[in-house]
Amino acid sequence: MKLYKIHFDPLDRCGECPSDRSLLQVAQDLEIDLVSLCGGLGTCHRCKLQVLTGLVSPPTENEKSTLLPQEIKDGYRLACQTYPLGDCKVYVPPESLTALQRTQVEGLDITVDLDPPVHSYEVELPSPSLSDLRADAERILGILYDQHRIKCSTIDIEALRTLSLQIRSSDWNIQASVRGDEVIAISPPSGQHLGLAFDIGTTKIAGYLLDLDNGKTLAAQGIMNPQIAYGEDIITRLTYAMKSPSAAVRLQRLLIDALNKLILDLCTPIEAAPEEILEVVAVGNTAIHHLLLRLPVAQLATSPFLPAVSDAMDIKARDLGLRIAAGAYLHLLPNIAGFVGADHVAMLLSTGVWQTDGVILAIDIGTNTEVSLVNNNHITCVSCASGPAFEGGHIKYGMRASPGAIERLRLTDDRVEYQTIAGSPPTGLCGSGILDAMAQLYLAGVLNTRGRMGNHQRVSTSDGQREFVIVSKQERDGQPAITLTQSDIRELQLAKGAIRTGIQALLESEGRDEQDIEKVVIAGAFGTYIDIASAITIGMLPPLPLDRFLQVGNAAGMGAKMALLSSSKRLDAQKIARRVEYIELTTIHDFNRIFMKAISIG
Amino acid sequence: MKLYKIHFDPLDRCGECPSDRSLLQVAQDLEIDLVSLCGGLGTCHRCKLQVLTGLVSPPTENEKSTLLPQEIKDGYRLACQTYPLGDCKVYVPPESLTALQRTQVEGLDITVDLDPPVHSYEVELPSPSLSDLRADAERILGILYDQHRIKCSTIDIEALRTLSLQIRSSDWNIQASVRGDEVIAISPPSGQHLGLAFDIGTTKIAGYLLDLDNGKTLAAQGIMNPQIAYGEDIITRLTYAMKSPSAAVRLQRLLIDALNKLILDLCTPIEAAPEEILEVVAVGNTAIHHLLLRLPVAQLATSPFLPAVSDAMDIKARDLGLRIAAGAYLHLLPNIAGFVGADHVAMLLSTGVWQTDGVILAIDIGTNTEVSLVNNNHITCVSCASGPAFEGGHIKYGMRASPGAIERLRLTDDRVEYQTIAGSPPTGLCGSGILDAMAQLYLAGVLNTRGRMGNHQRVSTSDGQREFVIVSKQERDGQPAITLTQSDIRELQLAKGAIRTGIQALLESEGRDEQDIEKVVIAGAFGTYIDIASAITIGMLPPLPLDRFLQVGNAAGMGAKMALLSSSKRLDAQKIARRVEYIELTTIHDFNRIFMKAISIG
Repeated sequence: MKLYKIHFDPLDRCGECPSDRSLLQVAQDLEIDLVSLCGGLGTCHRCKLQVLTGLVSPPTENEKSTLLPQEIKDGYRLACQTYPLGDCKVYVPPESLTALQRTQVEGLDITVDLDPPVHSYEVELPSPSLSDLRADAERILGILYDQHRIKCSTIDIEALRTLSLQIRSSDWNIQASVRGDEVIAISPPSGQHLGLAFDIGTTKIAGYLLDLDNGKTLAAQGIMNPQIAYGEDIITRLTYAMKSPSAAVRLQRLLIDALNKLILDLCTPIEAAPEEILEVVAVGNTAIHHLLLRLPVAQLATSPFLPAVSDAMDIKARDLGLRIAAGAYLHLLPNIAGFVGADHVAMLLSTGVWQTDGVILAIDIGTNTEVSLVNNNHITCVSCASGPAFEGGHIKYGMRASPGAIERLRLTDDRVEYQTIAGSPPTGLCGSGILDAMAQLYLAGVLNTRGRMGNHQRVSTSDGQREFVIVSKQERDGQPAITLTQSDIRELQLAKGAIRTGIQALLESEGRDEQDIEKVVIAGAFGTYIDIASAITIGMLPPLPLDRFLQVGNAAGMGAKMALLSSSKRLDAQKIARRVEYIELTTIHDFNRIFMKAISIG
Repeated sequence: MKLYKIHFDPLDRCGECPSDRSLLQVAQDLEIDLVSLCGGLGTCHRCKLQVLTGLVSPPTENEKSTLLPQEIKDGYRLACQTYPLGDCKVYVPPESLTALQRTQVEGLDITVDLDPPVHSYEVELPSPSLSDLRADAERILGILYDQHRIKCSTIDIEALRTLSLQIRSSDWNIQASVRGDEVIAISPPSGQHLGLAFDIGTTKIAGYLLDLDNGKTLAAQGIMNPQIAYGEDIITRLTYAMKSPSAAVRLQRLLIDALNKLILDLCTPIEAAPEEILEVVAVGNTAIHHLLLRLPVAQLATSPFLPAVSDAMDIKARDLGLRIAAGAYLHLLPNIAGFVGADHVAMLLSTGVWQTDGVILAIDIGTNTEVSLVNNNHITCVSCASGPAFEGGHIKYGMRASPGAIERLRLTDDRVEYQTIAGSPPTGLCGSGILDAMAQLYLAGVLNTRGRMGNHQRVSTSDGQREFVIVSKQERDGQPAITLTQSDIRELQLAKGAIRTGIQALLESEGRDEQDIEKVVIAGAFGTYIDIASAITIGMLPPLPLDRFLQVGNAAGMGAKMALLSSSKRLDAQKIARRVEYIELTTIHDFNRIFMKAISIG
């Protein structure tokens, strides 16, 4: 049988396939983790991909009835129903990938006009003579102007400490990196020009190493935020930091050490030197921002929850202990309020919603969920205490999105179909799985609108409360069953209710109706992985057509990258922070009524 | 007998005196150390003072023949010849005081238009509310503008770290200290506004604490430069610093620790807190400047002796480890060349000679002597390796200006009259005493113009060389005689020859003659204490009328103070550094001829 070459974008993986194997099977051969709940039966409709070039088998009746006509026109297919008839190139949308793989591909592309705050210039210095006794620093500043028309007034003190030796050992040929009117680094003429973007979350830290010359992402890595040892939630950490100055120093030290380790992890594989990193941008929530800078947090942890500082800041990276180029700066995007930080600003920046006409909702779901409503250029914003349920916290079998977590789930009569991360045996439920489970239980009539669990073949009682068995003890070879309990449901109602309350409160305060919303942008790890239909089913998100929703992945990290590459994007971020009107949720008229309505299901 | 009140200015000491005691005796009673070589006989003419108000005995014939008619008209008298006839107020010129007391009075006055780079504002903050949720930093910046029309864009990170607590503990009333567009410190509304000026010499450090609000000097103190343990001369220290990075750190650390100690010494007596110091200015020679900042020195220690940096610098004082206000800056005045530092700039600044018409010579005498020739706005400058002889180095009985040092000396036939510092028994000769001795030996014919020591009653031979006995073994109760040896004379010829060479070289390069010089400004500790006539006698200074010479004391420290109080003086300092044309002495045409002539005496 003839073998066809199949190329999968954007993962850039390639394999051969006979005409009797489906594209799903080829993908699995290539270790591309396409979502598939039904195991290739064509019933779960999750393994969607787009055929870009090449011939494939025609759409089945099943596909015709599931996919939208426009989708079919655009080449969208279910991988399990599609067989190659020639060499093909296909595109895998992020939502068809399981969580772990999705993080590897998202946010690799960035489109921004390059305008970084640091520029590097090669400089050929005349060697000194009795008629040219200029000091080394003034020699460089003078020649920078003569050769490049760059006027600098000062050289960073740490750069000064190395420059005399540097220029003599490289035979008076050097590279000067300039930021504003300051020379921040002197290096051999061959050095790279790198930039670093950090998205520092309460739980995870994402780091991106970029080439400032072409904007390319050279490396991306994630690590855990080690402050987690002092509290999973941010309030516990703030309380710890308030205990003593040394406690605050410890939290800062932990984070800085992790960032330095991440810097090495990013540099080593691509043989870059940390000294070649000429600029860093960091975003995070306001509390993380304060812990990173070791700013006071007492006023942040108590009403009215004021930041010590909100404006964008530029500080020498070395002053925090970051080990990169001698005089490099760390730029921190501005915060909006005590519970709406620079990560939300970065999200509004990278998605561009802040300067879009129309009515747009932008949501960053996490332990704390920030919601912005763009209403024809007037932007209002709330912060909702959605809690840790969607990260698996306070849920009996909840867990983080790691191998073995059930991330997709479907209930057909008494049968539960699920997909785990990395295909490992199930050990619990991560956020998107929890959301699916709740929605499926409601659709099956197991939950009523008030969240009460009724009767079902898989519902049993344990420790005095009802629970729904997702994976039975038998299915787990004798290990305890994985269940969703009545308490879990209550916890989830509070969590999703908080988010929906935020949405409704903004709509009411702006005099808008749900149906006015033209687009809902959902950012963040959890938000990217959830099934929107499930989120609508349980009433977390308003009931709008699915094509109005856009899941944008780590938009905060993307915003940090944009700010790294573009000075004008930094100005935009400051405009955003100034323009967004923060509303304290509890002060909104009718808050209680809105909240009570928001926690009901459906 | 009636007692009269005698008030001595500028020491502000007061005592009572009967009409049969001379003003010299009253001064001695009050522990005012007037110079007196003859013990009150009226023959040495050193105890000159000026009667400002009150009646005294008329001038003696002796005074009339010694003092100039204009001096007598102005009230100048010899203290030993003058008796009070009523209450009096007298002024003691610095040159009539012994070295130690002179340092206490000099440089206390400063006349400069106040224009410091730091200004402090009292700010009354509105406390936050649900309708005013500005971050603490933006609240301060906003109110600074509202209440004082001061636009700041940023608050120092260390100030930020204390401000949230500060504003809440002082009931939302604070004082913000502003430099440029940065808030550098937040303090309680009652705080003082202090500034600090350092003149960091190779041997000594002078510190001045000033009130930025009125320009008054609140405290002045001197300490030794502890780097001296790593070399009395600067080249030895540079060599040490080049050994290893840790050696450079050690030298820097020593100096910073000394400065911090000096800060406490200045603050404690006047009950000021170091945190109230909002700005520091430091001057020193280029090597000290580099050691302080831990800049590379290898290129400074080898031909063509290039500084790493010459321009003025502003760096956070805390970055060097100076413990003052949170975000305060250290301003370093610019250097001119490898061996002409910011101290010389400060001297040219404070004396104002840099913008004077005419032909003026400005000399800063030390181990290294800097000479500038102002020739109608064209300023040229050389550095002369005068060596340590005038600080007592390499001289058999040489010593620093401390109690017991012979600082004035006169030879009458075979008798040596001398004055020691603090009137202590003689233990050696300090610079001014050495200079006097050399001049007196030449005038008495003991030395010929080539410096050869001839015969004299007090000349003996010891260890194979001739030496002149200044204080004999008998006069010292059996301790070894204090002498000036033939080798000492050779050493002194080299030292004074170096200085004179610099002067002559500048004159020749500018096409000027000695007699064109309208004023000779002499700065520095040694330069202030020397007898100008002696310096002319031995040929160190050109033979000009005495009234063309001006001994200005620590003009470098004065320049540092001016730069502390005035931003426009800082700009002047930068103009000076740019305007002064440094000339490498050894490249001057005819250098050898000039030098050979310069080392001869007379």
